[in-house]
Amino acid sequence: MNFQSRLERLEKALEGPLLVLAPGNVFYLSGFRGSLGFLLLFPGEKTFFFCDGRYVTQSREELAIEAEIVEFEQDAVASICDVFFSSCASRLFVEDVASVGFIRRFEEKKCPVVPCPSPVNALRAVKDEAEIQVIQKAVTIAEEAFKDVLPLIQEGISEHEIAVELEYRMRRRGGEAVAFPTIVASGERAALPHARPTSRKVKRGEWVLVDWGVRVDGYCADLTRVVPVGEVRETSFQKAFSALLEAQTAALELIREGVEAKAVDQKVREVLQKSGFERYFTHSLGHGVGIDVHEEPKLSAQSTAILRRGMVVTVEPGVYSPEWGGVRLEHMVLVEEEGCRVLDTLPETFDGKGGENRA
Amino acid sequence: MNFQSRLERLEKALEGPLLVLAPGNVFYLSGFRGSLGFLLLFPGEKTFFFCDGRYVTQSREELAIEAEIVEFEQDAVASICDVFFSSCASRLFVEDVASVGFIRRFEEKKCPVVPCPSPVNALRAVKDEAEIQVIQKAVTIAEEAFKDVLPLIQEGISEHEIAVELEYRMRRRGGEAVAFPTIVASGERAALPHARPTSRKVKRGEWVLVDWGVRVDGYCADLTRVVPVGEVRETSFQKAFSALLEAQTAALELIREGVEAKAVDQKVREVLQKSGFERYFTHSLGHGVGIDVHEEPKLSAQSTAILRRGMVVTVEPGVYSPEWGGVRLEHMVLVEEEGCRVLDTLPETFDGKGGENRA
Repeated sequence: MNFQSRLERLEKALEGPLLVLAPGNVFYLSGFRGSLGFLLLFPGEKTFFFCDGRYVTQSREELAIEAEIVEFEQDAVASICDVFFSSCASRLFVEDVASVGFIRRFEEKKCPVVPCPSPVNALRAVKDEAEIQVIQKAVTIAEEAFKDVLPLIQEGISEHEIAVELEYRMRRRGGEAVAFPTIVASGERAALPHARPTSRKVKRGEWVLVDWGVRVDGYCADLTRVVPVGEVRETSFQKAFSALLEAQTAALELIREGVEAKAVDQKVREVLQKSGFERYFTHSLGHGVGIDVHEEPKLSAQSTAILRRGMVVTVEPGVYSPEWGGVRLEHMVLVEEEGCRVLDTLPETFDGKGGENRA
Repeated sequence: MNFQSRLERLEKALEGPLLVLAPGNVFYLSGFRGSLGFLLLFPGEKTFFFCDGRYVTQSREELAIEAEIVEFEQDAVASICDVFFSSCASRLFVEDVASVGFIRRFEEKKCPVVPCPSPVNALRAVKDEAEIQVIQKAVTIAEEAFKDVLPLIQEGISEHEIAVELEYRMRRRGGEAVAFPTIVASGERAALPHARPTSRKVKRGEWVLVDWGVRVDGYCADLTRVVPVGEVRETSFQKAFSALLEAQTAALELIREGVEAKAVDQKVREVLQKSGFERYFTHSLGHGVGIDVHEEPKLSAQSTAILRRGMVVTVEPGVYSPEWGGVRLEHMVLVEEEGCRVLDTLPETFDGKGGENRA
């Protein structure tokens, strides 16, 4: 990753010094992976990196940009203000994910802070080749781990056990961490889009919804599949799943550079409308994935984003009914000039043979 | 857990309606475990819970208080403002962990928001019996998993492998998730207080620093031990570790209801000063642990907290040198009226026999 060139590209767009504090943005611009660090950019001039004693040695190792490391004891704000006041700048832009409590401490020190939406988010939305490769690596690890676990998804295993075994295999295959808490939902619990895995044991004739992801070299994967265990008799399952497949296909056919993100969300709702499932699709269609598992652009009815080449997004229509459960199918998709590329290769459907499933 | 009584206790301290948004605070007051939900409290009157479509069913299941569930589509702020404006309140207090961007959206809607430090934090700092039992359960799972893994900590295993095996065992024993990214640091990497585990393989004569934790029923454990692999010849290791043990003992003797948190931090520095290690102790002594792995009170030089019965804190002095590495020893401690109780039972030292270690 060329962090220095990212920093320089960002600086061209700035009107004054910017304080970057969202951990994902700090990593994106500098390579620092710790939990607490601040970047203070003076466009065309020096860059400062602030951290406490826990991270001084680590930041020397990880920072991949030209920056002066400033160690603070407990009060980052005092330290940042000192550096700011020794410059000739008249105001300090700060990413508006900062808490009001944090901003207030600058105001107390008479520092002229201007909270602003972070200009880093738009840069991050479009991935370069190196980033796409790392994301592909994360997707592959997530998929391989899923294949390892598929034979275990049988009658009698609990949701919790499936999650634990899947996470273990992602970590063994080189994942740094789960990208988010693994969702495993069976039976009526599949009606909860963000179900936490429980000790509930999977029964024959049910299906298991698994939404899982891993972080590799700082980048995330995020996938969802539904695995039947034995023959599923619930006719709503079959109907809803067919509708989802049709909706997925329509979305993937539409995605390409220049398309409005909300148009893709809209298209999926239109397809689901035909079979009457639209009202059970209770969340937005997808989101960007990268350093954070949820980042720009959003694929939702309210989104103002235009899809651009290099964006990586999830496409994850779902249908949830308190009566019979829920299904969801999630791909990760790279937006290209003339279409899109699905980054995951697992099948969309499994044969219902439980332990005999082979991805 | 008696969520309703927590809510009522909080409401007595409020001067007006409060919007609670920190996920840990929402859980503490309501039982809701999802990633996005808002509680709007009108003291002595009705309570509202706001979530999006993903969490409607889950919130019905998890909410353990009397509250009206309000579903919003994309715009939580609009939904919260609607409810607020239909009340007769003149201002809306909001926890100041809210981002400035979030607060600005209330201001755009002419909602009279008053960001304030959350009154929930102080309540959470003091644990009740039910909470202490859950924390004890988390500590026990963390310890049992560590014992499982101890025989694997031998020459040739990598830092990453140790972390993966430890996390797997914590999950298998019922942990919901890791409480934080596991730290495993060997050789010179132990000088990094927050080292991410690497593929570096442990060598004979080194030691491995492991800082690990697990979340169980919503509450965290957080422990650190140092395991020698074979005979450690580095004399600084022995000296620093002896100094840490002495400092630990002094801290545990001091902790009891009524003591200033900063006095405990100070005491540890005084003990380390005698052997010249104080300048290598580059972080604060400890922190509260509960729903979040870092919560009130802080045990640091700047802390204004007074220790109270029922607080659960870490005591984790560490010594880090770029020349020879680092050591840390972390206990979890319950503050009592006449002293304190260490919640973890693992030994502080291991015999250096690597795979023959038995906790």
